[in-house]
Amino acid sequence: MFDPIEKLKEYVRHPSVSADSKFKDGMIGAQEFLRGLFTNLGFVVDVVPTALHPVIVAKRGVDPSWPHVIIYGHYDVQPPDPLKSWQTPPFEPIVLGNLIFGRGTADNKGPLMVHITAVARLLEKDPQLQLRITFVVEGEEEIGSKNFKYFLKENKHRLAGDLIYMSDNGILAPDQMVVTVGLRGMIAFEIELTGPKSDLHSGIHGGALMNPLQALVELSASLHASDGRVNIPGFYDKVMEPEPWERDQLKDAGLDEKKYGEFLGIKAFHMPPGYTPFEAVRFLPTLEFNGFSGGYQGEGAKTVIPSQASAKITCRLVPIQEPDNVKEMVFAVLRERCPKGVTLKITEQHYTAPYVVIPPGRSNTPKNQPLALANCFRALEKEAAEIWGKPLLYLREGGSVGLLSDLKELLGLDAVMMGLFLPDSNLHAPNENFDLDVMRKGIETSERVLASLAATSPK
Amino acid sequence: MFDPIEKLKEYVRHPSVSADSKFKDGMIGAQEFLRGLFTNLGFVVDVVPTALHPVIVAKRGVDPSWPHVIIYGHYDVQPPDPLKSWQTPPFEPIVLGNLIFGRGTADNKGPLMVHITAVARLLEKDPQLQLRITFVVEGEEEIGSKNFKYFLKENKHRLAGDLIYMSDNGILAPDQMVVTVGLRGMIAFEIELTGPKSDLHSGIHGGALMNPLQALVELSASLHASDGRVNIPGFYDKVMEPEPWERDQLKDAGLDEKKYGEFLGIKAFHMPPGYTPFEAVRFLPTLEFNGFSGGYQGEGAKTVIPSQASAKITCRLVPIQEPDNVKEMVFAVLRERCPKGVTLKITEQHYTAPYVVIPPGRSNTPKNQPLALANCFRALEKEAAEIWGKPLLYLREGGSVGLLSDLKELLGLDAVMMGLFLPDSNLHAPNENFDLDVMRKGIETSERVLASLAATSPK
Repeated sequence: MFDPIEKLKEYVRHPSVSADSKFKDGMIGAQEFLRGLFTNLGFVVDVVPTALHPVIVAKRGVDPSWPHVIIYGHYDVQPPDPLKSWQTPPFEPIVLGNLIFGRGTADNKGPLMVHITAVARLLEKDPQLQLRITFVVEGEEEIGSKNFKYFLKENKHRLAGDLIYMSDNGILAPDQMVVTVGLRGMIAFEIELTGPKSDLHSGIHGGALMNPLQALVELSASLHASDGRVNIPGFYDKVMEPEPWERDQLKDAGLDEKKYGEFLGIKAFHMPPGYTPFEAVRFLPTLEFNGFSGGYQGEGAKTVIPSQASAKITCRLVPIQEPDNVKEMVFAVLRERCPKGVTLKITEQHYTAPYVVIPPGRSNTPKNQPLALANCFRALEKEAAEIWGKPLLYLREGGSVGLLSDLKELLGLDAVMMGLFLPDSNLHAPNENFDLDVMRKGIETSERVLASLAATSPK
Repeated sequence: MFDPIEKLKEYVRHPSVSADSKFKDGMIGAQEFLRGLFTNLGFVVDVVPTALHPVIVAKRGVDPSWPHVIIYGHYDVQPPDPLKSWQTPPFEPIVLGNLIFGRGTADNKGPLMVHITAVARLLEKDPQLQLRITFVVEGEEEIGSKNFKYFLKENKHRLAGDLIYMSDNGILAPDQMVVTVGLRGMIAFEIELTGPKSDLHSGIHGGALMNPLQALVELSASLHASDGRVNIPGFYDKVMEPEPWERDQLKDAGLDEKKYGEFLGIKAFHMPPGYTPFEAVRFLPTLEFNGFSGGYQGEGAKTVIPSQASAKITCRLVPIQEPDNVKEMVFAVLRERCPKGVTLKITEQHYTAPYVVIPPGRSNTPKNQPLALANCFRALEKEAAEIWGKPLLYLREGGSVGLLSDLKELLGLDAVMMGLFLPDSNLHAPNENFDLDVMRKGIETSERVLASLAATSPK
C-alpha cells in the first residue's frame, strides 16, 4: 500500500533549492527520488537535462485511443531563509496535528504527491488502466521556468496530450475546492532617468535644472489617474470584462473585505471604480512600482542632486492583453511624457502572457473545447462537490505563472488546476505546511477524476 | 618652512565623515591632526566636546586692544559614495597636475589650510603679530552644524571677536576672487509613507491597494508647478528681491549659460520664469529631492509591493524666509496632500536660516557697520585686485552654511567669506579636488589681509 505521508516526508528531506547552487545535492536527491518512485509505479522515466536543472518525464500507457493527461509539478523549492523563524527544521518534515511541516510540503511536493498517490492507487486496482499519463516535473519553477520553456520547445512530441492536470495553486479553506481558471500576465522593466553628468551639490546648483528624482516622480505620477486606473491610452482596450458567472463565483467565495484589509494592514483599499478589491486583483491589469532608487539613501541627509534616478516597474496583464502590445504603449507614453532636461532609458526585463481557460457550460465557453478537457472539468466538479461537501469554485487569480501561457502556446493545451494549498500554508515563508485532511480529500478527488477520464476510453 | 600641500595631504588622509558613525576613527584622527598643528604654531588649543563631534578652538594673542579675528572652518567631510566613481581613492590624496584630489580637499580642508598657512607665515615673520586670532573648527558642518550651535551658545565668551573670516565658499574661475555675501538657508527632512504592514506579492494583491511608492510619487509630484516654481502656497512670500547692484555683480561675473549647461551635462535649464539660471540658484528658494528608497533595488526584477517608501527632501531658503515658517507650510501641505491608504511620517533632520551681509559702500549697507568688518572687506578688495588681477565680485551663493546665521544671531558677528574652491572642484561628489594655484594665491591674499588687520592695532 502506497503511503503518501511517508513518501512525502522522504521527498521533502531532499533540500531541492533551485536558486542556490550549494543545494545541488538536494536537487539531485529529489530527481533520483522521483525517478525511483515513478519507476516503481511502472512508468518509463527520463531525466531530461536542461541548461540548469533537469526535467523529469515519466510516462505510462501507449494506446493512442486512450485519453492522455499531462500532470505537471515542480520538484524545486524556495530557499528556507530566514532559518531562525522556522519552528522545526525545514528539511526534516514532521507531522504536528493535522499538518505536515517542511519546505516544499505545500509548494509543490505535497500537491504533486497527491496526484502520484491517486495514480498509484488506480494502478494498484487496475494495472491495465486505460489512460495515458505523463508526469512532467521541472526543477526551475521557483526561478522562473526559463529552461522549462526551452524544454517544451524541444519536447513537443513527448507531450502531445489532451490536457494539463496540475495542483500548484491554492484553495480558500479546507472545505472549499478552488479550480484556478486564469492568471495574470506580466511585463517587467526598469526606467532610468539621467540628468546632469554627475551628482551635484543641491545648494550650488539647485534651482537651475531638472532634478532626475523630480523628473522620475513627475513621470511616474502621470501613470495613474486619480480614480486608480492606469493612465495610459489604450491600456484597458484588450481587457476582457469578467462574465457575470465569474463575478458570481467570486461572490460565492464569501471573501470578507474587512478581514482582507486587516490581513494587509491597510486603512483603505484603492482600486478603479466598479470593482471590489477581490475583483480588481483578478480581473484588472496594474502598473506597479516595485522599487525606486536614486540619490542618497544612507543615514541622515545628503544635499545632492543625483545624476540618475530609476524605478523598477511591473504591469500585471489580464486576458486578452498581449505583453508586446502593452509594452509598446507603456514605453511610448514614458518616452512622450519624460520631462525635458533628462534622458530616459528603458530596460526590458521579462514578460509573461496572461492565461485563462473557460470551464464547460459557461456563457463564454469556446464551442470547440476539447472533449478530454471538458470531461476533466466536469468530473472534478462532480467529485469535488461530493468529497468536499460543496460546489467547487472557478476563480481567476492575480499572480502570474508563465508556464501556463507557455504550455498553451507551445503545446496548444489548457490546464485543469485543482487547488490544494491553504492561505496559511506559508508558501515561500518559514513554517511552510500542508494540510493532511486536504491531502486525503485531494487524493480521493484526483483518483476519481483520473478514473473518470480513463472511463472515456473506447473499450 | 610650513608646507601647505604636505599638511593638507596628511589632513585629508583622515576619513572624517561626520554623517556615518563607522568613520569615528577618521573624525578623531582629524581632531588630533588639528590639535597638533595649532599647538606647533603656538596656539592654545582646546578640543571642546559636544553631544557628537567636538569643536577645535585654537587661540593666540591676548591684548584686548588688538583686533580679534575668528577664523572658521570644518574638519568633517561628506560621505565618499558612490565609491566606484572615484578615479583615485577618496582618502588617499594625490597631486595630479595642478590639482590635489581627495574627499575634503575643497570642502573644507584645503581652504582652511590656506588660512592656517597664512597665519603660520605671518607668525614666522613676526611672532609678536598684533592680532588676536581664534580658529574655530567644527566637525558637523556636513550634517547641519547642530551641535556647533549649542557650542556657540555655551562659548560666547571665547568668541567675542570683531568679525568672522573664513573660506567655505567658491570662486568662479582661478583668476576671479569672489567674496560670498549671502547664502541660502535650508530645511532638511525625510518623508516616509507606510501602506500594508509587510511587503506584499504584487500579483496576489496588486490592484487592491495604494502602493506606497505610488503614493510617494503622487505626493512628491504635487510639490512643483510646471513652470518650475515650488507649488506650496506662501512659499515665495518672504523672498527678498535682489538689489540692482547684486544683479550687476552677477552680470559682471560674465557667467556663460551655454558653458554652464555643458558643465552640468544637461540639455536644458529648468527654473522659474524671470530669472537666469545663475540668479535662480542665488536668489530663489527650492524644494529638492535628494534620495528615494523603497522596494527592491537589486539586480533584475522582484514583484513586490513594499510596505514603505521614503524620500529625503531639502528646501533651500533665501533672505528673509524663516526656516520654522517654511517648515510649517511645507509639512502642512504634505499632510494635506498625502494620498489616502498610506500613513505619512515626517522626520525633521536639520535647518538653517539664510544669511546676507552687505559690503561697505553699497546702496543697502547698514549705517552702523562695525569698523573691523568694513576694514577687512576693504583690505580684501585691495589685495585681491592686485594678486588676482581683477576686482573681486560680491556674490550671494546657492549653498547653505548654517553657522553664519547662527554666528550672526548668537555672537552678533558678520563674516568675510573669501572664496577658494572652483566650479569643477566636485564638492560632495566623486573626484573632489582643490586647485593648487588658487591655494597659493589664497595664502598670499589671506596673509596680506590679516597683516592689514593687524596694522590697525594701536602701536
